[in-house]
Amino acid sequence: MRPALARAVRRLHPWTGEMAAFSLGWADVDGTPEPGASEGKGVRQALAVLGAEAVGADGRVAVAGAVAVELVHAFSLLHDDIMDGDAVRRQRATVWKAYGTGPAVLAGDALFALAVQSLAEAPGRHTGPAVRRLGDTLNDLVRGQAEDLCFEGRPWTGPGAVPPDAYRAMAEHKTGSLLGCAAALGALLGGAPDTTVAALDRAGRHLGVAFQAVDDLLGVWGDPAVTGKPVHSDLRRRKKTYPVLAALAADTPAARELAAFLDATGTPGGPGAAPGGPGAAPGGPGALPGTPAVTGSAALPAPGATLDDPATAAHAASLVERAGGRDATLREAVDQLGAARACLRGVPLAPGPSGELDALLEFLLHRVV
Amino acid sequence: MRPALARAVRRLHPWTGEMAAFSLGWADVDGTPEPGASEGKGVRQALAVLGAEAVGADGRVAVAGAVAVELVHAFSLLHDDIMDGDAVRRQRATVWKAYGTGPAVLAGDALFALAVQSLAEAPGRHTGPAVRRLGDTLNDLVRGQAEDLCFEGRPWTGPGAVPPDAYRAMAEHKTGSLLGCAAALGALLGGAPDTTVAALDRAGRHLGVAFQAVDDLLGVWGDPAVTGKPVHSDLRRRKKTYPVLAALAADTPAARELAAFLDATGTPGGPGAAPGGPGAAPGGPGALPGTPAVTGSAALPAPGATLDDPATAAHAASLVERAGGRDATLREAVDQLGAARACLRGVPLAPGPSGELDALLEFLLHRVV
Repeated sequence: MRPALARAVRRLHPWTGEMAAFSLGWADVDGTPEPGASEGKGVRQALAVLGAEAVGADGRVAVAGAVAVELVHAFSLLHDDIMDGDAVRRQRATVWKAYGTGPAVLAGDALFALAVQSLAEAPGRHTGPAVRRLGDTLNDLVRGQAEDLCFEGRPWTGPGAVPPDAYRAMAEHKTGSLLGCAAALGALLGGAPDTTVAALDRAGRHLGVAFQAVDDLLGVWGDPAVTGKPVHSDLRRRKKTYPVLAALAADTPAARELAAFLDATGTPGGPGAAPGGPGAAPGGPGALPGTPAVTGSAALPAPGATLDDPATAAHAASLVERAGGRDATLREAVDQLGAARACLRGVPLAPGPSGELDALLEFLLHRVV
Repeated sequence: MRPALARAVRRLHPWTGEMAAFSLGWADVDGTPEPGASEGKGVRQALAVLGAEAVGADGRVAVAGAVAVELVHAFSLLHDDIMDGDAVRRQRATVWKAYGTGPAVLAGDALFALAVQSLAEAPGRHTGPAVRRLGDTLNDLVRGQAEDLCFEGRPWTGPGAVPPDAYRAMAEHKTGSLLGCAAALGALLGGAPDTTVAALDRAGRHLGVAFQAVDDLLGVWGDPAVTGKPVHSDLRRRKKTYPVLAALAADTPAARELAAFLDATGTPGGPGAAPGGPGAAPGGPGALPGTPAVTGSAALPAPGATLDDPATAAHAASLVERAGGRDATLREAVDQLGAARACLRGVPLAPGPSGELDALLEFLLHRVV
């Protein structure tokens, strides 16, 4: 895989190639090779190769598909970091932070284009359906990012709140579609029948929802030194993560306390909306620090305090845990992995690679438990 | 074409669909339909349909290709406006200016993905080669934008200067590849032999260099009310446009005066480099206004003045004209159009559509003469 991916990246313009190598963790910001230090886990390429092997083909038939999904993954991280304003990924500066926003947009476009080109020029009679599948996936991926960003502006409670099912659809689009595409492309390029290809796609989509749920857990309770993300950053951005949605969906006193607390920290048009609006920058007029004050039986944030304030975010996280959001998220991840496994059981797969697929699913869950 | 394009855009997430409709000139920033007021010229879709008709096919076979190239064009304008920091296009705010940078990145990605999906799912046996051609084009397009941006940081004169041939390669990638792809996709989907497809691609690439040269002319001497761009914006950004490069390439006193003038306005590491560096924002420390002062026989900019200063940019433009840059650019455009026509003459094409292709080429040149 790695030589094929490196060959593809070498086809880029030197400047976009340099940014691509940085984003893939192969090189430092000045172009110095940095072997492996900041590379991703390579889950998608593994899924593609195992997808081919699981249908009895040589894993090498999946390489063009594996290259394409890794490039799409790198593209989506790069552009998502711009949209989310994330300055750090895998303990390093993000591409827009290191090279500037405009260049980062360009580098993402270059990876995107290279993914399409790499797969479209692969030899063999399965290329057409493979590219069609990649095209559908690209649209799902962008749709998932649109959904996720739109969720940020929605209230925590009331008719405009995000139901857990809408979260699942978002996570399936944003994370599951590419994982499903990876496994499906491997099977497709390996000559598998449509039912097997579809089962692997569905398995990857369930895996994606599990993966996103686990990521959400790490985003709230993970060690910033391990996750590479600032503590509570998802909460502070009002991201509608699964732990919070699951906690709010519970009909318990703790859930109601959480709902009241979050509503008071300011949501679009909500009662506690800060002067600077919900999107006000940290340090802006809405970001007055304040420790939670006890009002009646429930702690409410100090007047004017928003989730941009670390103490408020930390208290919200403890309320999410008390309302069962952490446990519900783990259950969701386990259930989704079970559904993924059931998809794999429903079609004939070679035992060896199928076992490796199972191990890969476990590995992703064991990041937290 | 238009119903097919509208159908494709309706498949997007509502939010990205709204931004796409705005960028295509179909709707106002608040989503109000704005029929036709700010639409593009539709050159690419016309080329695709004429490409099919010119090889004796029904123009309708080209619709999937026409949709794809229009979507790619919209994507590239959208992302290029972010990278170039352009706030106005076709007398309206650009997408990043109207909706924010992050949303504009997403909208561009959505159009990009939709283009690939639309073409990949087209029925018929020519889809595979068509998608392969689109993939190659996407890479050329991104490479051209990378080249153009890198040119901005290069000096006007000396060993690091941009030779006219490097400009032609950039323009071919940035503008010609998609025009060539449009015509070639039409012919390809119309079942034309490879030689005809390749000839239409080459014709479009020559057309692209002509188109870019004309655009450069309009960028320096065009009426801002017509072009919708601020006067001298390309010069102020140190864009290596053809008029300037052609003027600098002339071995005349006027060319040498222009070279001395530009070098004194600050280039990377150049003698007149302003304190804020060549990329300093207008109004920054390097943007001291200053009218040109006469030094010996040649006017040089006031000390510290940069091309960000309107008077300095205006004087540079007049020097470019005196050094023959305007005439050389018109000649280049006419020559490239002649080369495009020669490509069309070299293969058997149906006389009617072939005549319409000729008329389309003329139309693009008549924007300026």
